[in-house]
Amino acid sequence: MPDSRPSRPGVVLLSGGLDSATVLAIARDRAFDAHTLSIDYGQRHRCELDAAERVARALGARTHRVVRLDLRAVGGSALTDDTIDVPKSDDISPGIPVTYVPARNLALLSIALGLAETLNARDLFVGVNAVDYSGYPDCRPAFIEAFERTANLATRLGVEAAERGEAAPFRVHAPLIEMSKADIVRTGVSLGVDYAMTVTCYDPDGDGLACARCDACRLRARGFADAALPDPTRYQAGARP
Amino acid sequence: MPDSRPSRPGVVLLSGGLDSATVLAIARDRAFDAHTLSIDYGQRHRCELDAAERVARALGARTHRVVRLDLRAVGGSALTDDTIDVPKSDDISPGIPVTYVPARNLALLSIALGLAETLNARDLFVGVNAVDYSGYPDCRPAFIEAFERTANLATRLGVEAAERGEAAPFRVHAPLIEMSKADIVRTGVSLGVDYAMTVTCYDPDGDGLACARCDACRLRARGFADAALPDPTRYQAGARP
Repeated sequence: MPDSRPSRPGVVLLSGGLDSATVLAIARDRAFDAHTLSIDYGQRHRCELDAAERVARALGARTHRVVRLDLRAVGGSALTDDTIDVPKSDDISPGIPVTYVPARNLALLSIALGLAETLNARDLFVGVNAVDYSGYPDCRPAFIEAFERTANLATRLGVEAAERGEAAPFRVHAPLIEMSKADIVRTGVSLGVDYAMTVTCYDPDGDGLACARCDACRLRARGFADAALPDPTRYQAGARP
Repeated sequence: MPDSRPSRPGVVLLSGGLDSATVLAIARDRAFDAHTLSIDYGQRHRCELDAAERVARALGARTHRVVRLDLRAVGGSALTDDTIDVPKSDDISPGIPVTYVPARNLALLSIALGLAETLNARDLFVGVNAVDYSGYPDCRPAFIEAFERTANLATRLGVEAAERGEAAPFRVHAPLIEMSKADIVRTGVSLGVDYAMTVTCYDPDGDGLACARCDACRLRARGFADAALPDPTRYQAGARP
């Protein structure tokens, strides 16, 4: 994705799923030199980490890192505690589901912020979405705004800028936050994202094939359907959303 | 430390150093049922993790956990990158030192918040101090206040309370934040903390003995001297602050 504009470094949280792959493509399209960061937090769907590495390479990330954070020692979610099942149903469940991982996005963004400061980058990118989403609190604009403010108070670069009377340096970009899943899919396709590389399912089988019935699978399938684009997701035998 | 008041659960970030040991004693004195949390973030002074376990037991923590977060993959600090030396001098260096770990306290508090939510606790305790400290941005009141606000937007409990029109549930206690190191030491001694158990040095030897010359050693020694209390720190042969 060559671009004549001067590039700036940016840190992109990359889970390996549909949303964050789209965000990486957007960051690259905006001429950011992308340093992708995946967090191995003990998630049930760890095969997404392999997907993240493929996506980072395909979309021209400058560097890709995996940082381990053992949220299984904290638990409290179907994604980090094997004794809690991932819900499978015929529709998206109302309310905040058991796949919510307590304070996860705050922890992920904090690690991304530390990496940004180390790399002397000022821009963080995260694929949160508050429209076609599972009801997670840490995907809403109010959270992202509060995090950005905290980030500028938590860091050397933020404090030194304030002392010089300069604007807060760190900016959190959440370009998908107000988009429908169909818009996200359309945007990604227009930027050349190959969604066959991505893994969305919360409960894939050993080959990374999707279950088609968890909330994440349903939202993803609905996005392709609403966008009237072919869904490249690889489902388990007999499974169809 | 038995107490007739009803106990509430609280999460205490416990590094194994002097400050967080004092905070644990304060939380117990306030009748909190303390769940201590240490983060193994790849710190150079990992022997503090053993100290944390000893301190948790001695001060009656209900549970103690160690969560791994690999900040060596992020780097950018003398504490997480062995190619950056811990400064040794005859006085505390001005400005933010190279022992600052980018966004560390934000990441630590985020993990503590996730644990609190899992345990249905509302109170977090952290031993930050903005008086006799090394100039870290993430030890100041403005940061703690911003974090607390973000915490209540990042979590299920926070969002559900807001929807019911209730007060923000999570509270971050930083009882040392305005105290001198001498006051911290006096408080801890009055609450029965055995500081011989704690490890403060950023660059201890293989036996956990302190170097006496890093900023952390200097601040600690000055605290005992100012409080006119005996310093139980075990120093390396020939080392004296």
